[in-house]
Amino acid sequence: MEQAKILIQEIGEAGLLRLVQGFCPPDVIGNDAAVCAVRDGYSLVVTADMLVDGVHFSDRTTSAYDVGWRSIAANLSDIAAMAATPIGVTISLGLPPTTPVAWVKGLYRGAADCLQVGGFAVPIVGGDVCSAPVRTVSISAFGEVKPESELRRATACVGDAIVMTGMHGLSRLGLALLLEPEREAWRSVEFNDQQRAIAAHQRPRPRLDLVPHLQKWQEIYGDGHTIAGMDSSDGLADAIEQICRASGVGAILWRDRLLDLMAMNLSESRALEWALYGGEDFELVLCLPALLAHELVQLAGNGAAIIGEVTRSPDIAVLDRDHTNRILLDRRQGFQHFSVQ
Amino acid sequence: MEQAKILIQEIGEAGLLRLVQGFCPPDVIGNDAAVCAVRDGYSLVVTADMLVDGVHFSDRTTSAYDVGWRSIAANLSDIAAMAATPIGVTISLGLPPTTPVAWVKGLYRGAADCLQVGGFAVPIVGGDVCSAPVRTVSISAFGEVKPESELRRATACVGDAIVMTGMHGLSRLGLALLLEPEREAWRSVEFNDQQRAIAAHQRPRPRLDLVPHLQKWQEIYGDGHTIAGMDSSDGLADAIEQICRASGVGAILWRDRLLDLMAMNLSESRALEWALYGGEDFELVLCLPALLAHELVQLAGNGAAIIGEVTRSPDIAVLDRDHTNRILLDRRQGFQHFSVQ
Repeated sequence: MEQAKILIQEIGEAGLLRLVQGFCPPDVIGNDAAVCAVRDGYSLVVTADMLVDGVHFSDRTTSAYDVGWRSIAANLSDIAAMAATPIGVTISLGLPPTTPVAWVKGLYRGAADCLQVGGFAVPIVGGDVCSAPVRTVSISAFGEVKPESELRRATACVGDAIVMTGMHGLSRLGLALLLEPEREAWRSVEFNDQQRAIAAHQRPRPRLDLVPHLQKWQEIYGDGHTIAGMDSSDGLADAIEQICRASGVGAILWRDRLLDLMAMNLSESRALEWALYGGEDFELVLCLPALLAHELVQLAGNGAAIIGEVTRSPDIAVLDRDHTNRILLDRRQGFQHFSVQ
Repeated sequence: MEQAKILIQEIGEAGLLRLVQGFCPPDVIGNDAAVCAVRDGYSLVVTADMLVDGVHFSDRTTSAYDVGWRSIAANLSDIAAMAATPIGVTISLGLPPTTPVAWVKGLYRGAADCLQVGGFAVPIVGGDVCSAPVRTVSISAFGEVKPESELRRATACVGDAIVMTGMHGLSRLGLALLLEPEREAWRSVEFNDQQRAIAAHQRPRPRLDLVPHLQKWQEIYGDGHTIAGMDSSDGLADAIEQICRASGVGAILWRDRLLDLMAMNLSESRALEWALYGGEDFELVLCLPALLAHELVQLAGNGAAIIGEVTRSPDIAVLDRDHTNRILLDRRQGFQHFSVQ
């Protein structure tokens, strides 16, 4: 317990660097920049993210471990959303001198554990540490993908099935349970489901496990336009909207496929709202031919489903199976609201 | 002038994203991650840096343009120090909502201009913007290098000449002039030299111009161990110490080659101290065979010099040409102090 009280200012910048370098492979550090291999004929894929204490996380509700896990998960999810194989990440930290050393260790442990998800053992290849008035975490992730396997948003085709690779809204339920554990509305949710929702929020798993399959299909089925997609970090509705806008198409979504949270005893309206707008589930949303879609749902496992199809009409509509109760998602409102027609 | 008063909170995250995306090539943005080419047989080189208002810069002394320029310069200097060809950078910004939009534009303009230095036209390929209580800039830079051309610290050989690619201490003089413009000690420095020193501090030029030559020599002369080196961002003494420690060697430095600032009417002791410990000159410090060293000095231009040679003895000593006045740089003091023997 003594160690938990040591502050950054006591170990100094040199001590802090030694600590974080302990999480990097020794052969890539020790020079001005890290060196990673990119294989012949592959493109480099790059993403970056910044998280700030009090804005994106808070000591009150988020452990250091979870800050590390979630910040890595968000970046690896972007790499997965390009169907790219991860190569490495950099982690830069801005820290007040009074930050406990244990917090930094916790963050790196969470990051290191999340980097194992999907079986890639992604290395931390560098970063920076500096003094800052508020804890700040800045992550970059790099991956590689053959140009013909790369996944883009703009290639959805009319008739494609729309697949979500896992349940949506679960992370939002987890957040609600963390923020207001005593609230009456969640009492109906069983203990196991509560734990599952909290885990979904605290330890989202980037879908790197699907990358080899997506790469294979993009390669086999030709011109690299077989599958369109992105991740659902900003919500399912946002992902579908972005894909449709980039591809110049619309979509029909089946309402009954968006109500998974009803099985956890939430109301239909809340289940639908959180599935569409909850955010931070870090699943993939993919548009692809129906045969592949069925195979993908099998591979993606629990919660994965075909939730609709791509249409020529530019609208994005939520429908009952008998084509009643048509609800249009309202693009002008930035997907913050429904408009019923 | 009206525009200078618009705040980030008025244009919102969407407006801010549009602003910064205006500085990115349109073909690399719009998906979850940017895609860059890495050529066949090359390795990826990655570096990261974080700068915080009040720690690394301040609105009082540093314009937004210079914050952008300097943060890019530091990262491109690391890429140059690996003898790598730059591919792209990401820029992540944490900003208080009351930050003027003009500050963000200024920063990106400074960054974009510095990205032209050395003739590579390095693209900004992505990043993140988020709310933060203090202005925070996090940069990642990527480059590519053939494994056999890569520059490392650990390959200095006994007998190598030690070259600095430009004058050292000039940036420190510029900082002194900015911090205490009225101080008596700088009155003797001529106006033109003052302007040159301030420019060296505000707009350091990463030595990407030397990368093609370094790559060629590493390739021609064989096993990739021809040249050892790093950049001098943390000072000339620090660079030499790091190279010597990594290579298991020592060095002799010629005192008369370290006194360039005396020509600007500074005292000998200050000239020597700032040359060794001033920092932020962002030149390269290289150990290489004498014939190549002479060619390099010609190529590197004004201020470049052979300043010493690599020795078997592990000491790092500053000597007069007649081998008198031997001063040992004291490693135990972390190069903060001299110890005279």
